[in-house]
Amino acid sequence: MSYQQLLKLCQTRALLDSISNLLEWDLETHMPAQAIEQRAAHMELMASLTHKEKTSKKFARALGKLIDIETGQIKDTSLSAPHQAALVEWRRDYLRDIKLPAAFVRKFAQTTSSSAHAWKKAKERNNFSLFLPHLKKIVSLCRKKADILGYQEHPYDALVNFFEPEMKTSTLTALFSRLQPPLSALVQAIQKKPGPQISLKGSYDASKQLDFALHVLRAMGFDPEFSRLDLSAHPMCITIHPKDLRMTTRIYPDDPMPNILSAIHEGGHALYSHFLPQEEFGSPLCEPVSLGINESQSRFWETIIGRSLPFWTHFYPRLQEVFSQSLGSISLEQFYAALNTVKPTLIRTDADEVTYNLHIIARFELEKALIEGSIQVEEIPERWNGKISQFLGISPPSNREGCLQDIHWSLGAFGYFPTYTLGNLYAAQLFEKFTATHPRWQERVEAGDLSQIRQWLSQEIHRFGRQYPPEKLCEKVTGNSLSEKPFLRYLERKYRALYHVEQ
Amino acid sequence: MSYQQLLKLCQTRALLDSISNLLEWDLETHMPAQAIEQRAAHMELMASLTHKEKTSKKFARALGKLIDIETGQIKDTSLSAPHQAALVEWRRDYLRDIKLPAAFVRKFAQTTSSSAHAWKKAKERNNFSLFLPHLKKIVSLCRKKADILGYQEHPYDALVNFFEPEMKTSTLTALFSRLQPPLSALVQAIQKKPGPQISLKGSYDASKQLDFALHVLRAMGFDPEFSRLDLSAHPMCITIHPKDLRMTTRIYPDDPMPNILSAIHEGGHALYSHFLPQEEFGSPLCEPVSLGINESQSRFWETIIGRSLPFWTHFYPRLQEVFSQSLGSISLEQFYAALNTVKPTLIRTDADEVTYNLHIIARFELEKALIEGSIQVEEIPERWNGKISQFLGISPPSNREGCLQDIHWSLGAFGYFPTYTLGNLYAAQLFEKFTATHPRWQERVEAGDLSQIRQWLSQEIHRFGRQYPPEKLCEKVTGNSLSEKPFLRYLERKYRALYHVEQ
Repeated sequence: MSYQQLLKLCQTRALLDSISNLLEWDLETHMPAQAIEQRAAHMELMASLTHKEKTSKKFARALGKLIDIETGQIKDTSLSAPHQAALVEWRRDYLRDIKLPAAFVRKFAQTTSSSAHAWKKAKERNNFSLFLPHLKKIVSLCRKKADILGYQEHPYDALVNFFEPEMKTSTLTALFSRLQPPLSALVQAIQKKPGPQISLKGSYDASKQLDFALHVLRAMGFDPEFSRLDLSAHPMCITIHPKDLRMTTRIYPDDPMPNILSAIHEGGHALYSHFLPQEEFGSPLCEPVSLGINESQSRFWETIIGRSLPFWTHFYPRLQEVFSQSLGSISLEQFYAALNTVKPTLIRTDADEVTYNLHIIARFELEKALIEGSIQVEEIPERWNGKISQFLGISPPSNREGCLQDIHWSLGAFGYFPTYTLGNLYAAQLFEKFTATHPRWQERVEAGDLSQIRQWLSQEIHRFGRQYPPEKLCEKVTGNSLSEKPFLRYLERKYRALYHVEQ
Repeated sequence: MSYQQLLKLCQTRALLDSISNLLEWDLETHMPAQAIEQRAAHMELMASLTHKEKTSKKFARALGKLIDIETGQIKDTSLSAPHQAALVEWRRDYLRDIKLPAAFVRKFAQTTSSSAHAWKKAKERNNFSLFLPHLKKIVSLCRKKADILGYQEHPYDALVNFFEPEMKTSTLTALFSRLQPPLSALVQAIQKKPGPQISLKGSYDASKQLDFALHVLRAMGFDPEFSRLDLSAHPMCITIHPKDLRMTTRIYPDDPMPNILSAIHEGGHALYSHFLPQEEFGSPLCEPVSLGINESQSRFWETIIGRSLPFWTHFYPRLQEVFSQSLGSISLEQFYAALNTVKPTLIRTDADEVTYNLHIIARFELEKALIEGSIQVEEIPERWNGKISQFLGISPPSNREGCLQDIHWSLGAFGYFPTYTLGNLYAAQLFEKFTATHPRWQERVEAGDLSQIRQWLSQEIHRFGRQYPPEKLCEKVTGNSLSEKPFLRYLERKYRALYHVEQ
């Protein structure tokens, strides 16, 4: 059994996975509504076929010839470093996948399916008690899941590791406890200053908005030969293959920015997939290393670049030209200030880049407490409101704008939220390194040339796939382990200038 | 083992099939070009999974409990007539599917894949010799396929039966030999008369064209809740589920009719799928009975209704309004005459409804001769030109406009072409019965009400799925076995009037 034979064997599961992704893309973009029941059956069938492949004896035997599945020792040490790393990752996945019994996976899927329905109704009716019994079941199943998967320090570790390999709850707790107070302080300082007086609200033709998003994506390096942009209720990036990237965006007729920033965000994810080593399709080397690192790519593009002055120095004149009626009298500086308005909000998805992570930290603390059993599900509304009030200085008037706002818990996705903040932290740390390497990057961006950024990220991050665990990759690229400091430095530099807040 | 358990078991293959259909729809409509290699791998994988399901011992055991697989005797005679018919069809498919060895199927797929490439090049360069060696291999494989599948009278029967169960080459030969001379005579008579003096060529906005096609589809009974219309290089109808119907069309900026007629044609197919009994999804009762009957549905709508005066009495004023610049000065009668221009053409897909079947009969005679070995592949160009000249009175100046025009042979689809003519014959025979049942149908259509047609076809054809073999279904509905006469009566009535040709 050679590495190439193992890779070939694993291409079946990768093909199945990519078909599942296409099913999801179609569901979110073009599928007629009445097809929903059949689509659920499609997706369940594909998931079960993929699971069968991933846990098959045939695969275990093939993998076991190259790496000792029990000890993790590489058997064929003549393999290249990336290939040895791929074996380690295959083994990591396999050990996890065989742990969860099919009956548990089915029960989890059934519970979350009915829970998602209950959540929707509870949110509509602003009635937490409709969701409470479901959330109880979900939390209990997630705790059980953590027990089945096993952990060294904290049960929440097992859940986080689904999304962020090797990340520990203790690391998150330490990072977030150093991040939250200065963030809250910055928000408070900004609140005392008068914000931008300009609003971007106006009238923006939908098809022109879509054209503009495509224009920006082209500058980022996209080509219709290997990518698409469609509309969906929630913007997303679905990778079918490094040469088949499906981004979606959402258009508001009165505001051009959600569409543009969503497209840039999803473009950041898509570039990551695009520059993964295609010849490794089927192996962990052709997969993003973690949700945190993946989010760092989308946020690098969306916030650090896509909300920057150099970027809009190039793109604003064209935007202004396309939407001259609404933007004609707004200067670049006014536009830039309006685009970067900081204002505490109750809804996470509406949050700016200063307040955003406070929403995440609140969720993280509640999830962690629920999983370790230090609070009860019944306490959630009160605890939620307490955290939001403490971090952001505002209080949700209702659970709909509070603990019922996100779908994630109803889907059983505990451990997922922290990766959003990890993404922001990784992005800022990468950005510091990037600016040190390319100190004159702004000139290129002001000229509309984004290739330097694209190349640097593909060279430093994308091409490695899962060769290095996320934190190792961060150290390798930036020379330092993950820290909240670059992100705080980035925010303070940008927003103290924008809001004239003293150091 | 109950019927319901068998049905449930077979839903897996039906889901796999429908996923394959979605993969094909995506390939033809939205897929980025560079994804083509991976898409081929997707489709190959799904085909192999479907084949595995269809030929599994588990399925054979389940089926064998309800019907004797060797003799075809129903074991559970308490089952309803439709369910007993489903067992017969499941057995028919199974006996065919297990005959073809996997190695043969693979070789066939590989050969047709490289052959399709060679055909494309040969057509581009107008060089038959580039295609010749490939076509030789294809013909030899198709003869081998016929031998493997077995047949009673003629090897071509085995190939036709893939598309049209129980149809015999001798039946086709007899039908077509009675059809061709009067068709050629009608074409000749028409040629002597002056054709319509009006051309519909003009300038037709693409998005308005698409809107108009959707307008017609709505009148046919479609709703975006269970159907879509997209663009593709070749119009098609892809059924994912009776509630998920994907039609495509093609737009020419200088002519509105190819788009509208394509949409109506594909709509005819889609209505068939829509009215199949959904509760039987997974069984032959939820499948169209044959390509011929399926084509009868599309042609009934496209030609008999969609090229009729009552239809355009309702729709032409609106078409004229939308495209007033190009159609403003053309009367309904002039439009109707232009729409039904008869003129021999070299290209099948451009042919009108009088000449169309002559193209098919030529192909049928050549296919039959190749498969029985009475002519050699080398003779094809000369034989082709001879037939076209004999039937249509025109001669292809090049093979590109002759025997190289269709992709079908390169794909190994021998036995497929005759179903186009069967569709036309079935459609006309159904139409005679329909008009006898609803003699005032024209008034409803003139008022834009197409529901009577839709209901009659769904009641008489669609809801049965594969309960009756095609010819039995025809007899059941029309009281007669399949004949060329209703089609000839339909054509002569319509075109003698339009062209003032004497009887």
